[in-house]
Parts: sequence; C-alpha cells; structure tokens
Amino acid sequence: MDFTTKLNAFVSEVETALDQLVPAYAGTQPGPVRIHEAMRYSVQAGGKRLRPVLTLSAAALFRPHAPALPAAVAIECVHTYSLVHDDLPCMDNDDLRRGRPTAHRQFDEATALLAGDGLLTHAFLILSTHYGADPLLATALVRELADAAGSARLIGGQMQDLLAEKKTDATAAELDFIHLNKTAAMLEASLVMGGRIGGADDSTLAHLRAAGRHLGLAFQIVDDVLDATADSKTLGKTAGKDARSGKTTYASLHGIDAARRMAKEQTDAALSAFNALPGDTAFLLWLAESMLSRAK
Amino acid sequence: MDFTTKLNAFVSEVETALDQLVPAYAGTQPGPVRIHEAMRYSVQAGGKRLRPVLTLSAAALFRPHAPALPAAVAIECVHTYSLVHDDLPCMDNDDLRRGRPTAHRQFDEATALLAGDGLLTHAFLILSTHYGADPLLATALVRELADAAGSARLIGGQMQDLLAEKKTDATAAELDFIHLNKTAAMLEASLVMGGRIGGADDSTLAHLRAAGRHLGLAFQIVDDVLDATADSKTLGKTAGKDARSGKTTYASLHGIDAARRMAKEQTDAALSAFNALPGDTAFLLWLAESMLSRAK
Repeated sequence: MDFTTKLNAFVSEVETALDQLVPAYAGTQPGPVRIHEAMRYSVQAGGKRLRPVLTLSAAALFRPHAPALPAAVAIECVHTYSLVHDDLPCMDNDDLRRGRPTAHRQFDEATALLAGDGLLTHAFLILSTHYGADPLLATALVRELADAAGSARLIGGQMQDLLAEKKTDATAAELDFIHLNKTAAMLEASLVMGGRIGGADDSTLAHLRAAGRHLGLAFQIVDDVLDATADSKTLGKTAGKDARSGKTTYASLHGIDAARRMAKEQTDAALSAFNALPGDTAFLLWLAESMLSRAK
Repeated sequence: MDFTTKLNAFVSEVETALDQLVPAYAGTQPGPVRIHEAMRYSVQAGGKRLRPVLTLSAAALFRPHAPALPAAVAIECVHTYSLVHDDLPCMDNDDLRRGRPTAHRQFDEATALLAGDGLLTHAFLILSTHYGADPLLATALVRELADAAGSARLIGGQMQDLLAEKKTDATAAELDFIHLNKTAAMLEASLVMGGRIGGADDSTLAHLRAAGRHLGLAFQIVDDVLDATADSKTLGKTAGKDARSGKTTYASLHGIDAARRMAKEQTDAALSAFNALPGDTAFLLWLAESMLSRAK
C-alpha cells in the first residue's frame, strides 16, 4: 500500500468511527435532537483528520492491546469543539469553514456554543467508556487529553493568540508560546495517546511528544508562510489575511526565507524524533514531510 | 456540631480546595495569565456550593479510602463553567451573578467563553490526576461526570430549555426533560461520585442516584414557585421574570398549589432514598428539607 492510500484508509476509518461514536439522538421525544444535529454537523465537516491519523499511526508502530480508534475520535471531537468555539462571533467571527457555513451560521450562536461544549465533554465520555476495561490506560488517556486541551495549553494558547491579535508587536517568545500550545499541544497528545495505547515505554513516549512539538511548530510556520505567499485559489481560503490585519506571524517577524528555514528545521527535528521510535516509521516520516511541502 | 455549622464547615473546605486546585498561572512570561484570572474569578463568586457539599456528605456516609474534595472541586468547576456559558449574551445575557459582574462583563465574551472551556476541561484533569492512584475509581468518576455534563443530560437540558423559552406552550413532559437533565443530572452525579469514593455498592449507588433525581426536581419546582410568589428583595434577584417572559414553569403549568405539592412529593421521595442509605444520613435529610423550605 503506498502512503497516500494508507492515509486515505486511516481517514476513512476515522470517518466511520466518528459516525458511530458521536451520538445521534434517536430516543423518545422530548429529547435533545438539535444539540446532537449540531454536534454531528460540526464533526462531519471533513478536514484533514491529521490528529486522529497521528494517533492511529503512532499506535500502529506497536502491537496495541486496545483499539486506537476511540481515542482518535475523542481527539477529533476536542479539535472540532475548539474550531466551533474559535469560529464564534466573539472569537474569529468566521462564517465559513471548509466551504460550509460554520456551526453558528448553520444553527445559531447558542447552539454552536453548546455543541462545542457537548463535543468536548463527549471526548471524555468516550475515553472513560471505551477504555474502561483497562482503567490504568483510560486514566492516562484522560489525563493526557485534559492536559493538552486545558487552560495551560490549548485554551491558554488561544487566549494569548487573541490578545496578540490586538497588537502588532508580539515577540518571538509570545509567538512560540501561542503555537506550542494552540497547535503543538494537541499534536503531542495525538501521538502520545497512540503510543500509550500501543504500550510504549517512557522514553518512547518522550520521542513521540518531541515529534508532536516540532510537527506543531512546523505546521504553524508553514501556515504563516502560505498565508503570506500563496493565492486564495490555491489555499482554498482567503490569503494574505495576516498581513492585512497587521498580525505578527513567523513570516512577518522573521521574514519569509527565515521562516521557511525554521519550518525545515522543525520538520527535521520531528523526523529525528520519529527515527528514534521502534517499529515501521516510514508512514509517519512521509506524513511529516508532506506537511512541510503542502501547498495549502 | 449542628447542621448549619456542619454545612458551613463543608463549604469552607470546598472554598479552600477550589483555591488550591483551580490553577493560578505563576510561570514565566509569556504565559496564560488572563485565562486563569477569569477561571478563578468565576469559581470564587461564592454561591451555595450545593453540589460539592452533596459529594462530601455522600462520601462521609462511608469510610472512604480516597479524599472526596478533589471530586467535589471537579463538580463545582463543571457547574461554574455551565453558569459562565449560560450567562453569555447568546444564552441568557446576564450582567450580574450573585451581585458581581458576570465573567463576560468583567472580562469580555471571548475570555468568558474560554474560561468556561478551561473549567470544564480542568475538571477532568483533576479527576485523572488526583485519583490516579486508583485508576478504576478515576475512570468511574470521569465517566459519571462526563455523562451527567454531556449532551444527553446537562447540555441537552440547557438546549431544550433555550428552545422552550421561545414558546409559551411547553408540555409537562418537556418541562420534566429539561429539569431532569439541566438540574437533576449534576445533583445525581454529585451524590453518586461521593458514593463511589466511599466504595458504595451498586444498590447504594442506585439510592444515591434516585435521591439526586428527586432533589433536582424538587429544587427546580421550588425555584419556579419562588419566582412566582416571592419579592425581589427576599430572592436577591429579580422576581416574576418567568411570568413576564411567558415562560412555561411548574407554577404556570400546574398552578402554585399543585407545584408546591409536587415539590413536597419530590422532597419526600429524596428523603426516602436517603433513608435507604447506610451510615448517618441525618445531615443529608436536613439538607434536603432545608432546600424545600428555602425562601430564596
């Protein structure tokens, strides 16, 4: 199987599992119909499914004794919740995501708010239910996800990102903080949770965590470079938004060429971390490289 | 110790533990300062602390092998998050809570949204960290809380409550659904989590769950009656809001006298469930009765 086929197979598994594990209310009336419609609408918006694919491919390095799909779905639920809340009028106020109306445009603000809350909460229900037969693993997965998605990391990064948008003089340290937490934290958790399901030892988990960290930074720097250099048609979204809003990015702070070098360095560091892992890492190496060379 | 002194002692333990377990960012800059200020502002708003007190007093029926305070704090974090999001402009649009500006008035909407997200996520970090030495218990607590706070219960109840506010002809079944989930679910979880920490068997857990269910309905019916009969000064908040907005309540649907009888029946059912528990239930019985006879 070539890597693209393998990627598509992982994504297809994730889509099926999302459909199975994100609830659709089918009980007696009166019951919570609309909230579940909004939750499913949001998770079914497609997207790269990068985080769950990282979980599945990290677990596949080992001979896992538990399935990795429920954890992959839990991570995608958390990622989706963060996008739904991020799109709200009081945050980025986006009308479209992946060509479809955002949740608050399709439903309304209150429904989108609650659907995000529902997806976040559901992630922890999935972990505690589907890994209940191995409570040590379940507890470790809950802790990993709650930490990555918590106020010191994902939410803290989003908060600082909002504050940084209001000024044009964010420092390199502020920018690093934002992306290490807003982006890298969940990529770390995706890989580490896959490793935990595989039964990885502490030193292997540390390599997975390092890989996620570098991959997250590389991902974000590439995003900044693309926003500054690509056209909207190629990107599939409005290009040049950062420059017009005066937002500090890796590209504006360090210049395009330096930012490209930094993305390459972070990708190389991720590749080194992957190379230190046991098992067949070829797919993960390919995935990291294709993230660097992506055109959108 | 009389019951009021005991209640105050529990509340005081909860306040101290909230201060210890809800993070205050004190790391190096740049770091997530504002998000943690908003989270602490919201949990430190006071209030009855009913849910954590139920957890502590349920656990105290037994000789628990794990402390109940972290779980009590986790439950209060979830309750607080639900209030913060409920107060937002797209939901109830409240400016004041317990005499202080609501989180989005004190900070801004985006910060309040993220602070709510942070508190919800932090609850699961607390459970998975503080009960990590007993992963079977930790997993059961996470499952109980995620279920009670999830889209089929707390969030589903809030969604249906919002939808019901837009019409004046909500049915008795719709009203029951809303309160069983918006209010009772978290009271059930508070008692059941206390019981689990105490090592309660399945039949005892079922009594605790039934008590929480009846207590939740009684609590909500009393709220509706007070809104229709008390004056704003006694209530400490605007009275008569339901009638003016044409909202369907137990009082409007069944009449004040019938609603009072229903509150009494639900309280009696809660007392019966508490009476079926082992240990010294006197405090829980007193608490249930004082909830029924409260004047605000």
